[in-house]
Amino acid sequence: MKPDPRPTVSDVGEETLIARITGRLGGPPAGEIWSGDDAAVIRGGPQMVLTTDMVVEGVDFERSYASGVDVGYKAIAVNVSDVIAMAALPAHAVCAVAFPPRLPAEWVDDLTDGLVAAAQDFGVALVGGDVGRGSEVMVSVAMTGIPAGAAAVTRWGAAPGDLVCVTGELGAARAGLEALRRGAVDADATLLRAQLRPSPPIAAVPVLARWTPTAMLDLSDGLARDLGRLLDAAGVGCDVDAEGLPIAAGVERYGDPLEMAVVGGEDYQLLFTMSESVWHGAERALAAAGTPARRIGMITAGDAIVAGKPLDEWRRRSWEHLA
Amino acid sequence: MKPDPRPTVSDVGEETLIARITGRLGGPPAGEIWSGDDAAVIRGGPQMVLTTDMVVEGVDFERSYASGVDVGYKAIAVNVSDVIAMAALPAHAVCAVAFPPRLPAEWVDDLTDGLVAAAQDFGVALVGGDVGRGSEVMVSVAMTGIPAGAAAVTRWGAAPGDLVCVTGELGAARAGLEALRRGAVDADATLLRAQLRPSPPIAAVPVLARWTPTAMLDLSDGLARDLGRLLDAAGVGCDVDAEGLPIAAGVERYGDPLEMAVVGGEDYQLLFTMSESVWHGAERALAAAGTPARRIGMITAGDAIVAGKPLDEWRRRSWEHLA
Repeated sequence: MKPDPRPTVSDVGEETLIARITGRLGGPPAGEIWSGDDAAVIRGGPQMVLTTDMVVEGVDFERSYASGVDVGYKAIAVNVSDVIAMAALPAHAVCAVAFPPRLPAEWVDDLTDGLVAAAQDFGVALVGGDVGRGSEVMVSVAMTGIPAGAAAVTRWGAAPGDLVCVTGELGAARAGLEALRRGAVDADATLLRAQLRPSPPIAAVPVLARWTPTAMLDLSDGLARDLGRLLDAAGVGCDVDAEGLPIAAGVERYGDPLEMAVVGGEDYQLLFTMSESVWHGAERALAAAGTPARRIGMITAGDAIVAGKPLDEWRRRSWEHLA
Repeated sequence: MKPDPRPTVSDVGEETLIARITGRLGGPPAGEIWSGDDAAVIRGGPQMVLTTDMVVEGVDFERSYASGVDVGYKAIAVNVSDVIAMAALPAHAVCAVAFPPRLPAEWVDDLTDGLVAAAQDFGVALVGGDVGRGSEVMVSVAMTGIPAGAAAVTRWGAAPGDLVCVTGELGAARAGLEALRRGAVDADATLLRAQLRPSPPIAAVPVLARWTPTAMLDLSDGLARDLGRLLDAAGVGCDVDAEGLPIAAGVERYGDPLEMAVVGGEDYQLLFTMSESVWHGAERALAAAGTPARRIGMITAGDAIVAGKPLDEWRRRSWEHLA
């Protein structure tokens, strides 16, 4: 293999690298100060949400198939997903990044472009960051948000009789990952995109702030684990049918569709429960907002059953981050 | 070497590890929701500051000499330093941590205890986080703060004639690092502590919010680099004498004291400029608050001179994070 002639992060050095990064960011509105000081100065609100989520090379992505732009985009998107799952709109973000010293500096430019593109798509201001050295690329984003309604929606309020609903489709990101691992160049672009550039349904937030779910969280670790969290939080069960699951088209080329939809993970859609009396209005409003949702089952006082099996059977097959 | 019999992060698994971590954290006041949901719900304010800073094994610390408690403490402290450098008081923090799978899970308990201890010392609420896998330990904290005065203090306002001042003493953290690297068991505990558990002068914040500096930033990368940033931001020079520098006692055992004070780094003290008419009141008030400060020189319209040499000569010898 010929040595890569491009200047590395180490060649360029910290000060220049930071200048290259900040040169690609936008400027603040009056009354705010973004990167360039010890901390950013931002406008806040009386109630806010705050979250952090990181993506790590070798765990959440490989540089063999994900570009810097992809990784930057996803690092913002996964945090947006957490913010909107509280029925809040994302506001400000900071980003700490560790790079191997021999990473091409151009890759960092691409990463920055991905962060900026996602920040624009989701209306988040990228206001500061930190860079350091690591054995692999690590992008850690923290994000604030402002509840769109009177209060944030938690994951704790599900009650027997509530409907279980999801936005969008399931399994596409898992199938996209499988396609990338196989090097499937003819793979459906929708599946690859679901894995590389997730698109949390931010347009659903104003609707969900109005037609309040009883509980909500984002689907990041797969329906089995995330639904399990929602049920555990309220001490309830559920009945979810296989037939009702909105499985993405084309998933069947990469594995068992039901398995991918239930334990696949990284859907970055919203899972919520809602009283049936509210659902029909919410369903219409969500479709009108371009973020259609579907009822997939019901909360019960009994066991947690998904597609005819105990939820725990599905959960045991789920992704384990630290294995 | 005998294999370490203690359970590792990988043995314990993500869900249990998160439960162990959150079990060591405190609970929220009424109106807030901390860890356990997609995002924390916090009280904010009309003007806030937001920053992020990470510490990485092999760059910012070694596990051979820093305990988990040390690393957790420092990860919070370095962010507190950034927040107080805006004349703000820290409010809320989130923390993303990457661990090698074979790290003993006990080390994570220690890390959590260090995060919690620092959060208590500095009055910050640790409200959420993320865990993942990495080749080395990486702790990335993001922190919000609320300006203590009418507005945050930036690094941009220095003008010729202003005094250049610093809180505390310089060089101790660098000397402590040297002592740890040499395995100096008889080293001065003050120096080791300066390196392992930095103590940013948070009690200075209300004073500095009242006796407003014209510019301020924290001393993280050493006086040479941080003073350089302050001067560059305003397009001014300075005259700083060697005699005026508050060099910590005992530093001389580990290297040239002047070098350690000027390029050493990690002091986590405050560097600020202030009009001379204000200084005498501020000096008394800072001493009364237990965070004494010292004038070390003056801002000029000319060149930047530190201890008789151009500042750039000092800067070239400074720490490079990405090398």
